[in-house]
Amino acid sequence: MRIGVVAPSTPVDRAVAEQVAALAAEAFPGTQIVFHPQCFESWRHFAGEDSVRAEAFLAVANDPRFDALWFARGGYGSCRIAEDVLSRLGPAAREKSYLGYSDAGYLLAGLYGAGFAKVAHGPMPQDVKREGGEAAVHRSLSWLVDRSTGALEPSVEENTRHAAFNITVFSQLLGTPLQPDLTGHVLMLEEVSEHTYRTDRSMFHITSNPAIRRVAGIRLGRCSLVPENDPDFGETEEEVVRHWCERSGIPWLGAADIGHDAHNKVVPFG
Amino acid sequence: MRIGVVAPSTPVDRAVAEQVAALAAEAFPGTQIVFHPQCFESWRHFAGEDSVRAEAFLAVANDPRFDALWFARGGYGSCRIAEDVLSRLGPAAREKSYLGYSDAGYLLAGLYGAGFAKVAHGPMPQDVKREGGEAAVHRSLSWLVDRSTGALEPSVEENTRHAAFNITVFSQLLGTPLQPDLTGHVLMLEEVSEHTYRTDRSMFHITSNPAIRRVAGIRLGRCSLVPENDPDFGETEEEVVRHWCERSGIPWLGAADIGHDAHNKVVPFG
Repeated sequence: MRIGVVAPSTPVDRAVAEQVAALAAEAFPGTQIVFHPQCFESWRHFAGEDSVRAEAFLAVANDPRFDALWFARGGYGSCRIAEDVLSRLGPAAREKSYLGYSDAGYLLAGLYGAGFAKVAHGPMPQDVKREGGEAAVHRSLSWLVDRSTGALEPSVEENTRHAAFNITVFSQLLGTPLQPDLTGHVLMLEEVSEHTYRTDRSMFHITSNPAIRRVAGIRLGRCSLVPENDPDFGETEEEVVRHWCERSGIPWLGAADIGHDAHNKVVPFG
Repeated sequence: MRIGVVAPSTPVDRAVAEQVAALAAEAFPGTQIVFHPQCFESWRHFAGEDSVRAEAFLAVANDPRFDALWFARGGYGSCRIAEDVLSRLGPAAREKSYLGYSDAGYLLAGLYGAGFAKVAHGPMPQDVKREGGEAAVHRSLSWLVDRSTGALEPSVEENTRHAAFNITVFSQLLGTPLQPDLTGHVLMLEEVSEHTYRTDRSMFHITSNPAIRRVAGIRLGRCSLVPENDPDFGETEEEVVRHWCERSGIPWLGAADIGHDAHNKVVPFG
């Protein structure tokens, strides 16, 4: 098993790479984790210029010697390479697993929409820095290496289709070629560091999209680090999401065990 | 001439109403400005509950005794009443002028998309509180009352179609039934209080929409009160917009004289 790590958004420290490689060597012998050197590059807001990040993604995705492409971390930047990357993926790219969340959602959406079968939302190498983060990284590896069912978000069912996204990222890809057909899917959402009025606005946007109204239902993961609203918004994030589900006729299905934290579980798409 | 003012987003002070009414009485005798009492209501983040704001909007829009509906101010909230309001507009609503900007963009977009002919982006009563704000209010009144060409954004041409929006608001209505067909239109954009990386993300979103790629071109108004980016984004807002125009093949047309300030000019849609 050979896992390539690339960073389409922001850079990671070499210490993260070493820690994750050590963890993998101990817990998953025979598994090799290769951090593409691009992960450590830095250009303005990003882990290298757009072309550098795109080439690194393509180098791993199109290389049949890699079994999986693991997103190094979130931040911002993957939307800037999505159109270029998705137009240049070859046959080897279709065989691979892809795992990440947060800003990686743009590419996960585009890959899933293009018919890639092994796309999943879950912890990334950078999560090792969180409190309890080693468990998060172990969880992702256990899905990548063994397809461990213990890694899965507990409501994930065999005969149901699923997808999971950060609310802002998902909102910002609606109406673009990256928007996948999620008809009949359970849509899991999570958020971090957004004012409640912004989440309300994003949920208007998401639930007003005619194609999104065809999902099987919405589950809400954790919404963390919410800045104080002035005036107080008067509703929790769950109330906001339930409100927009009710208005739009989308079934509200309850909580999802995902979020920007070490407890974030794996949600395979489809 | 009778102008009804409603507040689909956040409330205004009575002092604003008095100041605007006094200004109108002096500069535009014979023009009556009626602030609907809803403008002064307050409920959580909003100028009254959703149903209260929707009913006030409909009361003015559907009343043939009003010649114009003027949005009191921006903030957040008009997206929450848009679907309800747009489904209940009668024949009298089609004859009216509609003027506002910022959060009002959701309703301006929906009205224009529904074929309303007198929709415009421009200053609102609350702008009277800005430094030099009386000139902004006078400008809007001169357009509402006299269709003064002196009120218009200077690049507006007789034989070209135009539309103008706040970048975040426009991004957050893409892919919903509020998205108007802007094929062949000059699209003017402006922003306030958003980090540059967020503007970059919104411009990805806007310029990746296949229907938006059919606009005649983009002009950028002022982007004010930009919070500091960490790390520095390395591009100005104009560079961001030019970058996405270039990538998407949308013509970059230069600056627009619009923004969240007293100099904001009027842009009639269509």
